[in-house]
Amino acid sequence: MPRITSVEAVDVRFPTSLTQDGSDAMNKDGDHSAAYVVLHTDADGLAGHGFTFTIGRGTDLCVAAALQRAEPLIGRDVGELCDDLGAVYRELQSDTQLRWLGPDKGVVHLALAAVMNAVWDLAARRAGVPLWRLLSEMSPEQLVDAADLRYLTDALPREQAITLLASRESGRRQRIAELEVSGYPCYTTSAGWLGYSDAKLRRLCEEAVAAGYNYVKLKVGASLDDDIRRCRIAREVLGPDVHLMIDANQVWDVPEAIEWVKALAAFDPLWIEEPTSPDDVLGHAAIRKAVAPIGVATGEHGMNRVLFKQMFQAGAIDYCQLDAARLGSVNEILAVYLLAAWFDVPVCPHAGGVGLCELVQHLAIFDYVAVSGSLDGRVTEYVDHLHEHFVEPCVVRNGAYVLPGAPGYSAEMYRQSLETYRFPDGSYWTARAAGAST
Amino acid sequence: MPRITSVEAVDVRFPTSLTQDGSDAMNKDGDHSAAYVVLHTDADGLAGHGFTFTIGRGTDLCVAAALQRAEPLIGRDVGELCDDLGAVYRELQSDTQLRWLGPDKGVVHLALAAVMNAVWDLAARRAGVPLWRLLSEMSPEQLVDAADLRYLTDALPREQAITLLASRESGRRQRIAELEVSGYPCYTTSAGWLGYSDAKLRRLCEEAVAAGYNYVKLKVGASLDDDIRRCRIAREVLGPDVHLMIDANQVWDVPEAIEWVKALAAFDPLWIEEPTSPDDVLGHAAIRKAVAPIGVATGEHGMNRVLFKQMFQAGAIDYCQLDAARLGSVNEILAVYLLAAWFDVPVCPHAGGVGLCELVQHLAIFDYVAVSGSLDGRVTEYVDHLHEHFVEPCVVRNGAYVLPGAPGYSAEMYRQSLETYRFPDGSYWTARAAGAST
Repeated sequence: MPRITSVEAVDVRFPTSLTQDGSDAMNKDGDHSAAYVVLHTDADGLAGHGFTFTIGRGTDLCVAAALQRAEPLIGRDVGELCDDLGAVYRELQSDTQLRWLGPDKGVVHLALAAVMNAVWDLAARRAGVPLWRLLSEMSPEQLVDAADLRYLTDALPREQAITLLASRESGRRQRIAELEVSGYPCYTTSAGWLGYSDAKLRRLCEEAVAAGYNYVKLKVGASLDDDIRRCRIAREVLGPDVHLMIDANQVWDVPEAIEWVKALAAFDPLWIEEPTSPDDVLGHAAIRKAVAPIGVATGEHGMNRVLFKQMFQAGAIDYCQLDAARLGSVNEILAVYLLAAWFDVPVCPHAGGVGLCELVQHLAIFDYVAVSGSLDGRVTEYVDHLHEHFVEPCVVRNGAYVLPGAPGYSAEMYRQSLETYRFPDGSYWTARAAGAST
Repeated sequence: MPRITSVEAVDVRFPTSLTQDGSDAMNKDGDHSAAYVVLHTDADGLAGHGFTFTIGRGTDLCVAAALQRAEPLIGRDVGELCDDLGAVYRELQSDTQLRWLGPDKGVVHLALAAVMNAVWDLAARRAGVPLWRLLSEMSPEQLVDAADLRYLTDALPREQAITLLASRESGRRQRIAELEVSGYPCYTTSAGWLGYSDAKLRRLCEEAVAAGYNYVKLKVGASLDDDIRRCRIAREVLGPDVHLMIDANQVWDVPEAIEWVKALAAFDPLWIEEPTSPDDVLGHAAIRKAVAPIGVATGEHGMNRVLFKQMFQAGAIDYCQLDAARLGSVNEILAVYLLAAWFDVPVCPHAGGVGLCELVQHLAIFDYVAVSGSLDGRVTEYVDHLHEHFVEPCVVRNGAYVLPGAPGYSAEMYRQSLETYRFPDGSYWTARAAGAST
């Protein structure tokens, strides 16, 4: 009976600010980073890997918080933990002293995500299946037991969640077979970072079309003139049929968002993403009403399930972009998927950063197989970036994620990558500091 | 020209869990704590003191975050900082890498509160006046420049905020004179902690009436039978005229909150506080509609101004209980007071914990003098607890805060208290650890 013997947490930072990969109107100089957690066990070769995604400074805070969050796991029986993943989540989440620092938001919640991501990875590895399959083989009752429905029962009582999942049970096998052929559709954001030149934007749009993408996303929001010019270039290259999405990364107040998006309406964007504060449910509802038929999307900074519940209740968004490393892992993500299906809002998970693509492919596949049972309006983000650090990187073919086959949550990074990019004492950062000081 | 020479941050924890002071349905074992910040200067005797309030584990995270937040202040000219308190707030707040870990919520935001509370304390000390007077002598334009109105302009454009403040300018002096006589009204929570026996509850209610309080608050939410018995005791002692408030500290889902509060309606509570998740704007609106005329109050876990904006827009609360150490200091608190006045919702700040009473007295006084100009429905929390650690503790007489006269934000703790209760190496904690290990 294997036990968890120790918890390792690593502050790993990649120097993406040097190339402006990932640059947008709010985040001009992010170093894509992770607070990376390993749950070591005494079973040969068995460990759980997870992380939360960060962009540089403060990753150390998430690492310190993750060690506190994970402390109750040390010495615990792996089988008992994996047999009741709702119980372990509730145990870690209910530390009332840490809860005060949220609740369910900010550093302590990101840390919970990192730790529980590692627990779910461990559970899938122990079962010898990829996470999407572990979830797809759970019964409706098991899924609802694992989900965090606290504060959601006014919108979705437990019994209705079970009924919803049960209604989708019969087609699971067929939908898996479909995805094994076609993959799960994705779009690319790699073309449209704000720091890229017009020539690079044009070339990357051309490459996206050539690679079979039906969706391309551009960053906007720093300068309206620039946005008009960049959207024109993109629309020229994409033609009328490839979908163009735009993403403002929270830079606008509500009235400005409405005005700016209307000025870009001629380029027929499918959605405006993060038009304002991620906390502003009523603001998103107002923007949605004003810019229709352009859709409103948000969620990568959606702090918890209570926010998403309200987004759905208020009819505030057309697309739910939950984040696999910001919500409290699969337990809270399950709740948001259930709510989204109940309110009939498509979930198009946020990805990119470090390793988010690796995680969200599992979630999107599971959603199609067992929750929404639909691909309508659903397309998952993909950014071709930093995958080389992962032992089982996601694979995209013809604008679709290929179903991952290896056991786990695809979260494991190469030891060499951790050692090179560990902050501040990995070899990359020590060399850079030495270079800076000469 | 004095400069900031260094930043000190202390993890200070008081062992309140031993006596159940502060116990409620959600937080049964809090050790009231603070991430305490001192901005040292090279001017003789001039320093800024501030903190955020925590309840034990994780205070170290806030301390580490505060040091990162405050780093840009080191070496800076005190006069320049104090002459544009909006600029320094925006500079610290706009660190995009730390922003990713919120934005504007959780540990990084609590840390911003701690640091900016110290900056405001420094500014008031430098001016030689208590903080409430510093604010009360600022012009409408200066106040609005200091306020964080980002993401709020759909509800309250800058010009309207200035107009609102200007309309209250003429009576400032008279209202100060009034408060110098009567103080600012407060209520006590000291009677009603959940862990107290019935006999202690009865005695403390009797003492509260004898001390002149017109408002008494009880914790509820763990057991309905207990709540009915405790409310009956309280109402018996208080009689029909003293207001009784009840506080559930977020333990209920929305349907349960409605049912439970209705079961306590016979005891005529003035408000139900924190009936559900602090993030649930629409949930509070639903509860308010269902339990009227009992009022709904929340805010001590209100993470930022965007949440409060929506609480007001949705008509979700009757009382706004902002927290002086959770919001981003005076800059963000100003914005919430302005919104509250605009929407005509009384602000009754959360206090208690460590030092929150010391802070909120300044805010409440300033609100009456310069923002709302009203005392209607306004009563500030007071808990008789841990004041002995403060150099200038708040003073309550006849159920009202006496106007503080010393320069600053009343935030300074005795050095001896810091040294005794610093975690884990202060003398109290080392002695306790030694005792535990024998």
